[in-house]
Amino acid sequence: MSDWFSSSYMARKGVAKGVAGKVHHLTEAAQGEYKYVYGAYAEPVLTIAPGDVVVAETLDAFGGAIKTVDDLPSQKLNFPFVNPQNGPIFVEGAEKGDVLCVRIERIVPRGPQPAGTSALIPEFGGLAANAGTPMLNKPLPERVMKYEVTEQGVRFNDKIMLPYEPFIGTLGVSPEIEAVLSLQPDYWGGNMDLPDVAPGAILYFPVQTKGAYLFLGDCHGRQGDGELCGVAVEINSTTTVQVDLIKSWTIGWPRLENAEFFMAIGSARPMEDAARIAYRELIRWLVADFGFDELEAYFLLTQAGKMRVGNMVDPKYTLGASIRKDFLPPA
Amino acid sequence: MSDWFSSSYMARKGVAKGVAGKVHHLTEAAQGEYKYVYGAYAEPVLTIAPGDVVVAETLDAFGGAIKTVDDLPSQKLNFPFVNPQNGPIFVEGAEKGDVLCVRIERIVPRGPQPAGTSALIPEFGGLAANAGTPMLNKPLPERVMKYEVTEQGVRFNDKIMLPYEPFIGTLGVSPEIEAVLSLQPDYWGGNMDLPDVAPGAILYFPVQTKGAYLFLGDCHGRQGDGELCGVAVEINSTTTVQVDLIKSWTIGWPRLENAEFFMAIGSARPMEDAARIAYRELIRWLVADFGFDELEAYFLLTQAGKMRVGNMVDPKYTLGASIRKDFLPPA
Amino acid sequence: MSDWFSSSYMARKGVAKGVAGKVHHLTEAAQGEYKYVYGAYAEPVLTIAPGDVVVAETLDAFGGAIKTVDDLPSQKLNFPFVNPQNGPIFVEGAEKGDVLCVRIERIVPRGPQPAGTSALIPEFGGLAANAGTPMLNKPLPERVMKYEVTEQGVRFNDKIMLPYEPFIGTLGVSPEIEAVLSLQPDYWGGNMDLPDVAPGAILYFPVQTKGAYLFLGDCHGRQGDGELCGVAVEINSTTTVQVDLIKSWTIGWPRLENAEFFMAIGSARPMEDAARIAYRELIRWLVADFGFDELEAYFLLTQAGKMRVGNMVDPKYTLGASIRKDFLPPA
Amino acid sequence: MSDWFSSSYMARKGVAKGVAGKVHHLTEAAQGEYKYVYGAYAEPVLTIAPGDVVVAETLDAFGGAIKTVDDLPSQKLNFPFVNPQNGPIFVEGAEKGDVLCVRIERIVPRGPQPAGTSALIPEFGGLAANAGTPMLNKPLPERVMKYEVTEQGVRFNDKIMLPYEPFIGTLGVSPEIEAVLSLQPDYWGGNMDLPDVAPGAILYFPVQTKGAYLFLGDCHGRQGDGELCGVAVEINSTTTVQVDLIKSWTIGWPRLENAEFFMAIGSARPMEDAARIAYRELIRWLVADFGFDELEAYFLLTQAGKMRVGNMVDPKYTLGASIRKDFLPPA
Repeated sequence: MSDWFSSSYMARKGVAKGVAGKVHHLTEAAQGEYKYVYGAYAEPVLTIAPGDVVVAETLDAFGGAIKTVDDLPSQKLNFPFVNPQNGPIFVEGAEKGDVLCVRIERIVPRGPQPAGTSALIPEFGGLAANAGTPMLNKPLPERVMKYEVTEQGVRFNDKIMLPYEPFIGTLGVSPEIEAVLSLQPDYWGGNMDLPDVAPGAILYFPVQTKGAYLFLGDCHGRQGDGELCGVAVEINSTTTVQVDLIKSWTIGWPRLENAEFFMAIGSARPMEDAARIAYRELIRWLVADFGFDELEAYFLLTQAGKMRVGNMVDPKYTLGASIRKDFLPPA
Repeated sequence: MSDWFSSSYMARKGVAKGVAGKVHHLTEAAQGEYKYVYGAYAEPVLTIAPGDVVVAETLDAFGGAIKTVDDLPSQKLNFPFVNPQNGPIFVEGAEKGDVLCVRIERIVPRGPQPAGTSALIPEFGGLAANAGTPMLNKPLPERVMKYEVTEQGVRFNDKIMLPYEPFIGTLGVSPEIEAVLSLQPDYWGGNMDLPDVAPGAILYFPVQTKGAYLFLGDCHGRQGDGELCGVAVEINSTTTVQVDLIKSWTIGWPRLENAEFFMAIGSARPMEDAARIAYRELIRWLVADFGFDELEAYFLLTQAGKMRVGNMVDPKYTLGASIRKDFLPPA
Repeated sequence: MSDWFSSSYMARKGVAKGVAGKVHHLTEAAQGEYKYVYGAYAEPVLTIAPGDVVVAETLDAFGGAIKTVDDLPSQKLNFPFVNPQNGPIFVEGAEKGDVLCVRIERIVPRGPQPAGTSALIPEFGGLAANAGTPMLNKPLPERVMKYEVTEQGVRFNDKIMLPYEPFIGTLGVSPEIEAVLSLQPDYWGGNMDLPDVAPGAILYFPVQTKGAYLFLGDCHGRQGDGELCGVAVEINSTTTVQVDLIKSWTIGWPRLENAEFFMAIGSARPMEDAARIAYRELIRWLVADFGFDELEAYFLLTQAGKMRVGNMVDPKYTLGASIRKDFLPPA
Repeated sequence: MSDWFSSSYMARKGVAKGVAGKVHHLTEAAQGEYKYVYGAYAEPVLTIAPGDVVVAETLDAFGGAIKTVDDLPSQKLNFPFVNPQNGPIFVEGAEKGDVLCVRIERIVPRGPQPAGTSALIPEFGGLAANAGTPMLNKPLPERVMKYEVTEQGVRFNDKIMLPYEPFIGTLGVSPEIEAVLSLQPDYWGGNMDLPDVAPGAILYFPVQTKGAYLFLGDCHGRQGDGELCGVAVEINSTTTVQVDLIKSWTIGWPRLENAEFFMAIGSARPMEDAARIAYRELIRWLVADFGFDELEAYFLLTQAGKMRVGNMVDPKYTLGASIRKDFLPPA
């Protein structure tokens, strides 16, 4: 274990103490039908124990339907059957009131080049009149981009090579009695589209239902803050995560830890409400575990908090509020 | 000139070509009455030429009225006479349709220790029911914090030392016919509270009126993203800026350049509108100067844009959208 | 049929032409378990034909758990099991792309007096820091109000008697693959909390799934615009509706018709987006059926549109945009 | 005096007790240069005593520049010189902490027919990508409408005649040290575009500065809720108001009274914040004058409050929260 991982919440408090268990291969074949909602109505495709590792073959957000720049989303996509997810994965021992830990180990692009897809989708996007903020303006032209994506980089065009900085766009557990589109982020995770959900990070999700019903999908080769046009560098991937379980830890929203910082993640509209949710959750964390009183934590984040804009395009916007670990006293 | 500065817009296009001119000392005495609105109704306190350097003695946002932790804002402040500004400074040759360049050289704390002040002000703050988002909940307790601030750091408390990362909280030119509280950010600059407005950065403001009427004040020893409680590490400072003028450059919102990135700054409510403004202004920049077509720039920022949350507490929220210079082709 | 009803969409285009069919009594016993999500995962409790009338015994939003002013919501409610719904009701012949018509005939309070309940619920309400717009302020006190409610009026207190103006708070069809809390309004209807959804009105919902899966519940003895504290005059009721089906009518959001006006209903956050959705849907209606071009309809609603604020407290805010029938040319 | 007027705040508490004083004719010639900001920097055009009546010749929002449907706003308007205002009018005895009463008596259209103008203005409007909510979509076409407007009606087109329901779009006092565009509504009034600001209503504004500096302009022949495209039926008018002064009445936002209701008016973005401001101000009113405790008032407005959407297009959105007088105990 790396130094920081051994002191992580997952390694310290997880049922498996951060020790990797059995490896499960959730291939396309093993997955069978991909899922389009986060909920506990579908049968689990896999049952795992805390500590187990899952190697999942994820599909891109279009389920592979956009193969060339001539495959227009309006013709190839069949809403709401977009953003296909691997899962649900049943985690033994998980119950409402626990926290599911997901340590992201690796994300490798799969499939023929150009492996990455982006697109302008009608009535969607951060700078386009859209279904949530409708206008009378004529829609933007539909356009598809295909990018060569390898672990060495994302070729934006002949002149611009961008770093490969992959992350999981959609990841989380199931709500208790709902089944919600995989397009939406919420307190259970889901389509957060937050670039910090990347290899090296551990995600913590508040379990809502027996077995947690973990889902993941929608990997991105990279993305800017806000996912401006609504579609990142969408890739098929082979993604490896190690799962663990912390019993009886009540959290309100997803949390994230990596070598450098602790983050709380909020999703809401308007965007300031996502920021408020994230910062309040982080204050609660500081109060519960680091000896701050609430107003002292409020002052500290005023001077030292960071805010990452994940998405400004999904049904709820996602922001992550964080504090550097080296600014904090020991937990 | 440093390498990057010599290739900056200010050095390449400024009337003074980035060459420093006369140095003006805008001391407290020279300033006389500090100002509380951005507008062209007040007489200039100083007239400068493009290239000139101004060394300003700024007051903290409370005009020094909060001297100890027992000086409660509700007793010591007299709204709207808060956030006092140096200026207006008349810049020779500046006209509507030009751009005023402000290169920030240095910000040094002034005055006796503890030099930094933060506070919880009634009906104000990002996680408090406030005048703009009122609730029936009882207000938070009023509380004042005093921090020792030197160029070596900000002492948050006995256990936590934070880096000194100073910036100018309020900086900009005057609107054409308005006079607007120095508490508000807008397309002319003002109270942006954006930590990137720091030494090493050049700000570009769209001139609205003859002489530009530059104001500055409200320096911060440091601040987290969003300025969560509404009050950063407020300091009196000696702040040095070099001013220049680019003729006939039409921009819609403040822009910023430093060694690493180009940024466009938007201020609005709700927060997503500030993000939209910032990203659209940055797209226009990429289209005008870097050979992109609009949708190509939209795609690039989707994959490579960064978003900084300046403030989520002022009358308008301020966000900065940026792109790394090394991702761009030459201008 | 009343004059206006005979010329309604339901009477003109419905499969049953507005002629009442069989009457079904959906008593508490017949309903059995009430439902807490809108979705097609539950078995229908009733199957009806277009034209049929349903007399439903609805429960109040608390499922009757708040019997006295001493029954505190935090102790008596078990989130997410709130806002119980009658249904799902399977409507024969209904398919995605159709419109379900629900004509509201009568809403009669049920049960012992005081039959009406309102309450301040922690972390909920339009003027209270809440889960969606969190603050650090201490919560409002919890408080329960019980009101005597009859068809003659709602006794607010000894001095104030308010008119009995009942309506259905939560009404709609199921989303296609989701199951969403009955607390949320959306394009399928749901918890709109819009006082116009009252006896004398016909609601039109876009069917998303075979059988429509109609739900209803959450009747209110009356309510102000916005449902300010989050809880109207909640009653158990006997509610009578006549259902019909219009084949192949594509609408994007719920619509409403009564003797006086046509209304389109939008639900979103922030509130202006709900307003935009409602007005755009109404423009589309005017264009499709009344011979307007889009910009002409935009001008007409600028001068003659009305906007009703339904709720400003639920997960999405609901607004209804309407135009008086006598301002329009014949359909 | 009509019954209700004799019991109004203005008649009961005004310095002049509602008794009309001297009549002042603020003709176009007497006004001279119309004003484009609300502020105390301009010299008063008129000084009046409490009780005095002002008959003002107002200009339309375009200053008459749009004479035919071929006069495109982008060619004829010179931003920010739009929405010209009569005033400032100095009211003797008015001081910060007082309330200025403006009773609206009559609004008569002036000038040749067609006297009414509406238009689609680039980057403006509630269903158009605009400067505050920018998008990349192409702008809507520019279009001008001219309507015949008399006290008998507004001729929308050959088939649709709409009632003449005039009101003052922009009305208020000056902020203390600011000068703010007449396009913006705020706590001092301004461009509220709220149809209740009509003959028969009394407006109450919180005075911010000695003499109050009253402005008015921007009369509308009628308008729908929200002023959807951003431009109502703009008319030149002869408008008659009676002014009075209530000493030492502290209010936070404009209030309105007519025969039927009391209203508090809030302006903010996003729209829910305008609603919160309006409802909280109304609660404060009920608490101060009608014997309610705060939570009781909160409950009452939950069941009986009304919300009017004034504008959803201006720099701040304006909503009015009201309660019927006959629901209240005597003041």
